[in-house]
Amino acid sequence: MGKQVVRLGFLGLGTVGSAVYEVLHRNAEDIAMRAGVDFQVRRIAVAHPEKPRPVPVDRDLLTGNAWEVVEDPEVDVIVEVMGGIEPTRSYLLKAIESGKSVVTANKQLMANRGRELLDAAEARGVDLYFEGSVGGGIPIIRPLKESLAADRITEILAILNGTTNYILTKMAQEGWTFSQALADAQRRGFAEQDPTEDIDGHDAASKLAILASVAFNTRVTASDVPREGIAKISPRDIAYAQELGYTIKLLAIGRNTDDHVEVRVHPVLIPSHHPLATVSNEYNAVLIRGDAVGEVMFYGRGAGGLPTASAVISDIVDIGRNIRFRANGRIRCTCYRQKPVLPAEQVEVPFYLSLQVVDRPGVFARIAGVFGEEEVSIASIVQKSRGETAEVIMITHKTREGQMRRVLDRLRDLPVVKEVSNVIRVEDSEG
Amino acid sequence: MGKQVVRLGFLGLGTVGSAVYEVLHRNAEDIAMRAGVDFQVRRIAVAHPEKPRPVPVDRDLLTGNAWEVVEDPEVDVIVEVMGGIEPTRSYLLKAIESGKSVVTANKQLMANRGRELLDAAEARGVDLYFEGSVGGGIPIIRPLKESLAADRITEILAILNGTTNYILTKMAQEGWTFSQALADAQRRGFAEQDPTEDIDGHDAASKLAILASVAFNTRVTASDVPREGIAKISPRDIAYAQELGYTIKLLAIGRNTDDHVEVRVHPVLIPSHHPLATVSNEYNAVLIRGDAVGEVMFYGRGAGGLPTASAVISDIVDIGRNIRFRANGRIRCTCYRQKPVLPAEQVEVPFYLSLQVVDRPGVFARIAGVFGEEEVSIASIVQKSRGETAEVIMITHKTREGQMRRVLDRLRDLPVVKEVSNVIRVEDSEG
Repeated sequence: MGKQVVRLGFLGLGTVGSAVYEVLHRNAEDIAMRAGVDFQVRRIAVAHPEKPRPVPVDRDLLTGNAWEVVEDPEVDVIVEVMGGIEPTRSYLLKAIESGKSVVTANKQLMANRGRELLDAAEARGVDLYFEGSVGGGIPIIRPLKESLAADRITEILAILNGTTNYILTKMAQEGWTFSQALADAQRRGFAEQDPTEDIDGHDAASKLAILASVAFNTRVTASDVPREGIAKISPRDIAYAQELGYTIKLLAIGRNTDDHVEVRVHPVLIPSHHPLATVSNEYNAVLIRGDAVGEVMFYGRGAGGLPTASAVISDIVDIGRNIRFRANGRIRCTCYRQKPVLPAEQVEVPFYLSLQVVDRPGVFARIAGVFGEEEVSIASIVQKSRGETAEVIMITHKTREGQMRRVLDRLRDLPVVKEVSNVIRVEDSEG
Repeated sequence: MGKQVVRLGFLGLGTVGSAVYEVLHRNAEDIAMRAGVDFQVRRIAVAHPEKPRPVPVDRDLLTGNAWEVVEDPEVDVIVEVMGGIEPTRSYLLKAIESGKSVVTANKQLMANRGRELLDAAEARGVDLYFEGSVGGGIPIIRPLKESLAADRITEILAILNGTTNYILTKMAQEGWTFSQALADAQRRGFAEQDPTEDIDGHDAASKLAILASVAFNTRVTASDVPREGIAKISPRDIAYAQELGYTIKLLAIGRNTDDHVEVRVHPVLIPSHHPLATVSNEYNAVLIRGDAVGEVMFYGRGAGGLPTASAVISDIVDIGRNIRFRANGRIRCTCYRQKPVLPAEQVEVPFYLSLQVVDRPGVFARIAGVFGEEEVSIASIVQKSRGETAEVIMITHKTREGQMRRVLDRLRDLPVVKEVSNVIRVEDSEG
């Protein structure tokens, strides 16, 4: 007896779309055995139907008009791999309205308009799955929704951007400057020609918004996530951090308390023995802390056509199983609470500072005086170089962002301080 | 409107059972929101109903007769946390037969009688879930069945036993002997008073059989897994391995080819930069290689009441969702192929050897001669100590087990070889 056929309509056939198409065909037999249904690609919307394709695709399936795919009554599931917020959002809303389930790998869309789309899907009783939007092939959205369903998740610490992790790894291993490492990443295809989205932390912020929404059961959008990029990190900061037993990483951090959630993306010093410190090059990792499970970590390639295709197809398979059992809507939007996001000024972390100061007696006292008056307590203060100008490295105890800003303003006004070269947060929570 | 109620019957209320009970109550509201149903513990079978309990449990629920739970028509789902093969298997078969879904954390049962139980569940259209049987709280069974459903999984490399990983970590970090580290693990509660099950690799072999069955889509039982324990590992082996850039771990290894599967549990030298090499103390980790996803790793606490309860409850939640949508049987037994297990003699790996030899000229030539005649090629041979007896460390290129055994027999017969102190496999595949 033939299996039930689930018909797919693709929006997009770029790197991820082509890989989804390729793997769906290459592993068709296994995928059908696991899903209990057969999948058939019925229609594919592309910007340029005439363009040559890297995978052998039946050209009769191609159309330049996405609405044809969205409105095709013979398409059961939309596979959105075109990206962008509009017109993608309109296509997906229309697809959902007409009873189609949707798989998307679109982090921007989910991080900004996730609520609207998930509400629409829930109201219509269809599935909207988005495993490929975070961490490439690393299973993380489904594990959070299913495998960790028993837990109150209290913390997310994650390396969500491969480009910046590659750059920081090379700076640490080779002693390169940020610009040298960026140029190398661009040569190897790990960074875009315009790398802003990655190096300024936008990409990681969108992914953290999605993860936090799922893990903390309250909606977080990209604009809720304060972020800082890695362009200011110098090889000296990395070397000093290493001496102090730390590694510098761009982390996405989320915390969940009874009253609020806390989310942010910025470079941090983490202890070099921390599981995330050893995640190198373009790899991603997500560490989750739950009240029952303790600490679990998920690790793998956070980008690329094939890994992301693995995630997208896992969503397609799950929807296929739901269609077979008429169980669409089986896993609902997880944002059943509404918690405020803690304002950035109220977040408390230790800080690492590097200062250029006049090298003469009494300078430490002047600097320490400012910290004392602002009630910021110092964990260590070390002079790293001598000369007309001396470099001083400080680490504070936990301090509110707002307090730290006041200290920095006052330090910059001190005649003995020539420059505050860098301020980097420290992450050394142990649960 | 009240939610549908799914009624649970526990078999067992030991460390894991108590933790399941506790977390089900503590996080009841979240668990119900996520599952879309409420859960109610209806009956609990324990060996000694009168015994004091570490968690406050309604004593009216307790019974000394497991059949009462299995046959209770008001129990929808059996939560099996009693362990052992019989009578557990009989209870579960009866429960399945009467239409109950089952959650079990019983690795022994699943590794030995998994097929029988899964076939029964499939025939009856109920669910049999076993996330807690491998890796404690680490999500791994469900990610393999769902998140990696697109992939042809080619390799599993895993640290599946926390006791042995703790012992090897302490030997490496503190220079302790195996016996010292074992005694320390016993003091800290990481090792049983009779540690055989862990240190001889039985525990890891059962878990690997379960993982391989799910990942490779063919049934592997515990008895298919050749295993060696860690009792022979000496602090000197660990030190020599470190000098050569390796870390010694007890690994569970599975490989999947077109023709067969390969499974084994034994100590190995892995490169110290390998993601598994940095997994220390009682932590577990599972590295999976798939043809689309590439390399992904899952890391966390592989044992303990609360982590295992997290896994068990995730299965309960999933079954609750299935009951709500009448979708039980939605994910079927994954063993839809039948592949032979490669005989141990045919497995090919590099070997590390430590030999005690007579310290005089010509000895290397005699030893190397044996390797040459048996067509085993040597990657390195280094003399580590001098004296009347010299210690020699060798690493070979990939060699079949059968060939290696012939070399060892001949070495032991050489008058210049006083002892073959250790033989450890090397794992340095890079995909």
